[in-house]
Amino acid sequence: MAHPQVYLAGPDVFERDPQAAAERLKRLCADQGLEGLFPLDAGVEPDPDLSLFAARISEANENLIRRCDGVLANLSPFRGPSADPGTVYEVGFARALGKPVVGYTEATALYAERSLRWIERIDGKIRRRPSGSVEDAQGYEVENFGCVENLMIDCGIAASGGMIIRPKDGAEPGAIPVELAIETLARILRRA
Amino acid sequence: MAHPQVYLAGPDVFERDPQAAAERLKRLCADQGLEGLFPLDAGVEPDPDLSLFAARISEANENLIRRCDGVLANLSPFRGPSADPGTVYEVGFARALGKPVVGYTEATALYAERSLRWIERIDGKIRRRPSGSVEDAQGYEVENFGCVENLMIDCGIAASGGMIIRPKDGAEPGAIPVELAIETLARILRRA
Repeated sequence: MAHPQVYLAGPDVFERDPQAAAERLKRLCADQGLEGLFPLDAGVEPDPDLSLFAARISEANENLIRRCDGVLANLSPFRGPSADPGTVYEVGFARALGKPVVGYTEATALYAERSLRWIERIDGKIRRRPSGSVEDAQGYEVENFGCVENLMIDCGIAASGGMIIRPKDGAEPGAIPVELAIETLARILRRA
Repeated sequence: MAHPQVYLAGPDVFERDPQAAAERLKRLCADQGLEGLFPLDAGVEPDPDLSLFAARISEANENLIRRCDGVLANLSPFRGPSADPGTVYEVGFARALGKPVVGYTEATALYAERSLRWIERIDGKIRRRPSGSVEDAQGYEVENFGCVENLMIDCGIAASGGMIIRPKDGAEPGAIPVELAIETLARILRRA
């Protein structure tokens, strides 16, 4: 029987050696009876017209997501409190198609706490509203639903049948629970 | 004939007076023959169980997107170089369902330039790779396809039949081209 196919969403494509990252993730997937599909797998040829090149990459990635049985998403904070926006787009895309999504993150703190720390670091201005909630210097509330990410991401993933895996208590800083995420997605796909 | 319905994605829900933001956007939509659907329109009752409350908001918003004819997305940078992650999720969600998406942003600089500025502000470490591309202190490449956002967002929106509207040259700082975005989406929906 063919192995279920899993799209590997994440900023791993921006690593210095993305093929090494791809191989590592695919090996971990194979250990769980899954076939990993990495964004670069489509083998889109570089084009001197960057907008054409970008459009082809986007189309290839969307097609990989349409074809896959589930999505594994690296939601570790990326240059701020939130995940890489390309990854978040792909999670929403997969969710709309009814694909199970399992996320994982190196962050131990929840979204509200990460956002607060970030705002303090950036411009130090946090104001408390009469309602008790907290807003940033631009007047935007810091969402606080006890979620790992913006609630659309957490709850969309939960509604897909998946979950977001965080480091266990006492894990080393920077430890990324990718193995557990892959195990979890494999279990979900076996049940499907 | 019923007006086409447009989901109003954006961090506007986090404003101090989100209802005022909703009314303003809806008025601008009505001027173009569109009915604006704001995330809070579903009227989800607060629940002391925050995770239940969050799940209901998420479900209500996803249902509004499923029901709408198109999405208008406020992609202005949110606490970093990128848009609000909830908005990005919704753009991906809408794109997978084949809905036209028009984005708008107050940012005049493209994603690569915003990312570079942000990285310099945060930890000042930008390295040039032998390939000529640039990476941050974590070793992640700064994506540079001449896009307004991560390429999945720009190209997904383009593939949906939409586009991202940026401030015109010479616009005042902070000017948000929302009217032009709504006009553009109205024109796309009339053609559909």
